[in-house]
Amino acid sequence: MSILEAVDATRTALEKEPGRAVVRVQTEARLEAGTKVAVQAGRHSLTVDEPPSVGGTGTGPNPVQLVLATLASCQAITYRYWAELLGIRLDAVTVRVEGDLDVRGILGLDPDAPPGPTAVRCTVTVEGPEEAARYEELRRSVDAHCPVLDVFTMALPVERILEVGGAPAA
Amino acid sequence: MSILEAVDATRTALEKEPGRAVVRVQTEARLEAGTKVAVQAGRHSLTVDEPPSVGGTGTGPNPVQLVLATLASCQAITYRYWAELLGIRLDAVTVRVEGDLDVRGILGLDPDAPPGPTAVRCTVTVEGPEEAARYEELRRSVDAHCPVLDVFTMALPVERILEVGGAPAA
Repeated sequence: MSILEAVDATRTALEKEPGRAVVRVQTEARLEAGTKVAVQAGRHSLTVDEPPSVGGTGTGPNPVQLVLATLASCQAITYRYWAELLGIRLDAVTVRVEGDLDVRGILGLDPDAPPGPTAVRCTVTVEGPEEAARYEELRRSVDAHCPVLDVFTMALPVERILEVGGAPAA
Repeated sequence: MSILEAVDATRTALEKEPGRAVVRVQTEARLEAGTKVAVQAGRHSLTVDEPPSVGGTGTGPNPVQLVLATLASCQAITYRYWAELLGIRLDAVTVRVEGDLDVRGILGLDPDAPPGPTAVRCTVTVEGPEEAARYEELRRSVDAHCPVLDVFTMALPVERILEVGGAPAA
């Protein structure tokens, strides 16, 4: 199914059953030896780990690398969708996302240092035959509809539950 | 190097050279055919894609699955670090993160629907021989120092640059 066919099919399905618009996305991470984590996202598995320099075994990207890379991939895919939706030809897209991280925040070495990135920069390079203004129009639509950019730029409450030995903690 | 040795070495190094506390983390995503994206995070590669039901080829997790899974893995690793730092024995950790997503937001089918998750729930199950109160103490330290939880719960500005054909867009 092409992207436009998929969007049309989704629109038609949701007009009939609006209650299906909100889907639940489920993931799981299981800590193995040291800092190695086995992750399940849908039917896909991956490994997340810290490098040896901070006590890990380096068998996968670490979470900060991965969250920045996820923003980069989400921007790239959203460029694809919105180029199709707006009829803008797109020959190539590369997204570089970099973040500044104060390692004192994660390790509790400075109470004033936040644990997350303190600055994030996202540079998108597109190639194609259209006027620059059309790619600027595309960028505005992408930035308004990119789910992971939303996660970064909005303060999203996260409900947290701790269970000890399978039972809720006292 | 153990986690405690790594934290001690980091503390000592930063006392000598505080200017090294902020590190730059770089990632890149390159759009391939359709919605398939080749992602580089440090020396690790992965594939991100959408499922066929929305016009992709299903060769990897999609960005929303991946960002939720990244939060799950970051929580798991931060449990490991802070259990070591606080001297709390931890025999197992599993983290389930789920999010509600209104697909109308991404596809622009409803201007009132946000593109990102509308609710996120994080359930951590720990196993170990300590009193429940110690795991609750651990949870508080983890939630105060988890970088990806910070990305979700704080509004983080993301600087965005568009380059067309390698040159900045007009």
